[in-house]
Amino acid sequence: MKRKGILIVVSGFSGAGKGTLVKKLVERYDNYALSISATTRQPRPGEEDGREYFFLKKEQFEQKIAENGLIEYACYCDNYYGTPREYVEQQLSEGRDVILEIEIQGALRIKEQYDDALLLFVMPPSAAELRRRLVGRGTEPEEVIEKRMRRAAEEAQGIGAYEYIVVNDDLETCVGQLHEIILAAHNTPVRNREFIENIRTELEGEK
Amino acid sequence: MKRKGILIVVSGFSGAGKGTLVKKLVERYDNYALSISATTRQPRPGEEDGREYFFLKKEQFEQKIAENGLIEYACYCDNYYGTPREYVEQQLSEGRDVILEIEIQGALRIKEQYDDALLLFVMPPSAAELRRRLVGRGTEPEEVIEKRMRRAAEEAQGIGAYEYIVVNDDLETCVGQLHEIILAAHNTPVRNREFIENIRTELEGEK
Repeated sequence: MKRKGILIVVSGFSGAGKGTLVKKLVERYDNYALSISATTRQPRPGEEDGREYFFLKKEQFEQKIAENGLIEYACYCDNYYGTPREYVEQQLSEGRDVILEIEIQGALRIKEQYDDALLLFVMPPSAAELRRRLVGRGTEPEEVIEKRMRRAAEEAQGIGAYEYIVVNDDLETCVGQLHEIILAAHNTPVRNREFIENIRTELEGEK
Repeated sequence: MKRKGILIVVSGFSGAGKGTLVKKLVERYDNYALSISATTRQPRPGEEDGREYFFLKKEQFEQKIAENGLIEYACYCDNYYGTPREYVEQQLSEGRDVILEIEIQGALRIKEQYDDALLLFVMPPSAAELRRRLVGRGTEPEEVIEKRMRRAAEEAQGIGAYEYIVVNDDLETCVGQLHEIILAAHNTPVRNREFIENIRTELEGEK
């Protein structure tokens, strides 16, 4: 089977560690490309255009929307965030699996356009552990932690839309498991249409 | 996550090597149990009751049907074949993954009853290779080979109902791949309902 690149959407509760997980995955294994989002928000100190984000002006972003140049986009706190289509398509055509880190609404919009997209949901081993991690960061005031816990409860309702859940207990173990799941997911019928179609045609010819 | 046993249904073209594959899988890894079918056909020389099949009289088999003691059954060439429920349920409750080797109609009937059942389809790398293997056995007359090739063409239409396809090119590699796919498949939301429900309840309580 010729391996075709697929879009991999990683979602998960804030504090589940999906950012670190995805970063490690891309570092440890070849064949993954990390999608870089576009945004209209201001760069923070140390952020670089084309590394953390593509920083665009509002007019540029809206131009991209008009051209269908974004796979999905959303507006938070008066700023646009979105996934540029060109980079994703290019990486897929070169056989790489492209990873996006977005929330459920974006994930579902992607699944509508790419029916072979792989939706993964990263979870902590328990709610108590999630709270421990959020508190442990020591950077967030109590009300922000409460807000994140409430948001996690909402997000937990959408898990059924995902193809796999990944429990992030030990980070290094979880990276390996995530990779194994992605390898396995390449073997579904929807991700092997061409191979199946070919063998069907071949079998018809053999009759 | 507490690991729950699941039902694994393996189907595939005659000649794709699914019998050998399943046998190797059960030998190489723990935690698998092979389901033994019941049948009303006569034992062949060397076959043992409770090893190849449970050999039942027609009345015994029909009694089992009446008692809902079979997960699925079918009638071929005037003989019944079916999957006894008791053994399967017992193995699942002990946390083992139970493997059944049956064709698509049986697979779909199982999926109706066990929505977390895992349906796998074993394929040869190509139709030409399938024919080579059937001819290579040297035991089948030409018309039987033609019949199997025609049956494969029909069966190929049902592949979309399976969760994964497994290409049996090199047997040893394929056994390992099959195992990896089964491990990954344990991470779908439908196979972790209890864990997800628990974390939802826990998150609601944290609000």
